[in-house]
Amino acid sequence: MLLNECVDFLKIKSSFVLLTHRRPDGDTIGSAGALCLALRAMGKEAFLFPNAEFTKGYMKYVEPLMAPDGYVPEAVVAIDTATPDLFPCGFEDEVDICIDHHPSNSGYAKHNIVWDKRASCGELVFEIIKALGVEVTKEIAEYLYVAVSTDTGCFCYANTSSETLRAAADIIDCGVDNGRLNKELFRAVSRARLTLEGLIFSSLEIYCDNKVVIAVITKDMMEKAGTTEDDCDDIASLPGRLAGSRVSATIKEKGPDETKISMRSTRAFNSNEICAQFGGGGHAMAAGCTIRLGYKEAKKLLLDAIFEALG
Amino acid sequence: MLLNECVDFLKIKSSFVLLTHRRPDGDTIGSAGALCLALRAMGKEAFLFPNAEFTKGYMKYVEPLMAPDGYVPEAVVAIDTATPDLFPCGFEDEVDICIDHHPSNSGYAKHNIVWDKRASCGELVFEIIKALGVEVTKEIAEYLYVAVSTDTGCFCYANTSSETLRAAADIIDCGVDNGRLNKELFRAVSRARLTLEGLIFSSLEIYCDNKVVIAVITKDMMEKAGTTEDDCDDIASLPGRLAGSRVSATIKEKGPDETKISMRSTRAFNSNEICAQFGGGGHAMAAGCTIRLGYKEAKKLLLDAIFEALG
Repeated sequence: MLLNECVDFLKIKSSFVLLTHRRPDGDTIGSAGALCLALRAMGKEAFLFPNAEFTKGYMKYVEPLMAPDGYVPEAVVAIDTATPDLFPCGFEDEVDICIDHHPSNSGYAKHNIVWDKRASCGELVFEIIKALGVEVTKEIAEYLYVAVSTDTGCFCYANTSSETLRAAADIIDCGVDNGRLNKELFRAVSRARLTLEGLIFSSLEIYCDNKVVIAVITKDMMEKAGTTEDDCDDIASLPGRLAGSRVSATIKEKGPDETKISMRSTRAFNSNEICAQFGGGGHAMAAGCTIRLGYKEAKKLLLDAIFEALG
Repeated sequence: MLLNECVDFLKIKSSFVLLTHRRPDGDTIGSAGALCLALRAMGKEAFLFPNAEFTKGYMKYVEPLMAPDGYVPEAVVAIDTATPDLFPCGFEDEVDICIDHHPSNSGYAKHNIVWDKRASCGELVFEIIKALGVEVTKEIAEYLYVAVSTDTGCFCYANTSSETLRAAADIIDCGVDNGRLNKELFRAVSRARLTLEGLIFSSLEIYCDNKVVIAVITKDMMEKAGTTEDDCDDIASLPGRLAGSRVSATIKEKGPDETKISMRSTRAFNSNEICAQFGGGGHAMAAGCTIRLGYKEAKKLLLDAIFEALG
């Protein structure tokens, strides 16, 4: 679907619910929040679907926009969500329009607009809002800044393009205090998070002359550190700090037969291809999957796949 | 001095030495390197003055550009240097032109161009190079990127403006692999450093409802992690990541009767006053001292002083 078709669709409908993905991050929340406010500015009714996995840190962004119980909108819009299994609950066949930037997007919605060259969904939503003719207020810009900055690790990750930086510049010019937001989003962490980082860094597994780094996070480590999901934002990026690493994976024990994998890599390695082997996906440099095995077996499978890809 | 006057000056002269400041950072090195290459591209002779304080991490940027012994240029250019006492050796009255962005610049050179609204000197040097009519090659752009990105903490510090981001975008478009450079400059650390961070975060001592955080680094921890001083850059900032912390201290065992303290604090606490009690000093928000005691006794004294100051 083209940008102008997406805009026409949004203009025609009068009430919306916006879906964010599971384990919601700054991009899905910021993008959905910005679009929600823009639709309201057009006199429409718009809410975020109450995702049960919204974390404490983002609550102040989502709480004022949350849909009331039993809300039935005219249109369902999925934001930054590549596949329907990433919804917190069953919207499988009900999504009217999906706005996303994941190359792995399965095209599940009735209409799909996927700009897979963009680092963040926020960049696409920014274009949509401008094309809708809505003024990007300071409030809308703050949501957009949250989206663009978090998906790029504050413009540090390899997905950051010159287009990302120009979008961020335009967003800041709408009145965002980026210094304050950066401190809040990227620096301050809980005691439990620091303890968990300690446990992770103390137990990294390193292979192939530093090229491959594995961080295992067991339920036992989470308990020992006192961490909840709230403390785990962007934890998948940590092992990739190792100098010389080309691919890193965070392997998280979810249950005796469930292991969640998050991979990060440099341009020299395609994480998406590895995760796709296990039914997951994402981007070339950041992808994920769930393996229905215990974490030790899952790790073995993953390492075999990585070693084979490295040749 | 205006941009076009600066450009005219650089065009007229035929040989240059570029000065960087003491404890050279990415901005002074990147800005000087970029201008040096641009002047060479104009057929001129240009070198960096061999600053004795260049560190290992930046050596690959400065080594190919360093002036030979006894080099006498037609013009001396100071880069990113606010006052003459920041030169590694006596150039006090010999600087023909100073290119800088510090509001505290004393105007010591014969000609001064100071753009004090810019986050980095690199942004000004980028404008100068374009005004000189020199093509910004990939190599020049890499030096500029080092300058702009390091002075803004990879676009995270509060000095980052929309102008900074647009300059960085234009620089990236000249062929910079920003993902690779960001990893090298901001993220990549040694295995030993990650292990040490693990040990530090696993053993933080936290007091007064998170207000006070203490990190102890013993010789035993350094040995266990395999760390040298090269791995300890900016380690004093780590405990201050705790949300809600007001004052943090890194207590490093140097010997049985020697303990080094580095303190960091928010505006709400004066670290300098505490360190001064032990014969040290620094700034209100970043100070240090050495206590001639073992680390356990030193920690006790320090904590007593902090608790008293907190009241």
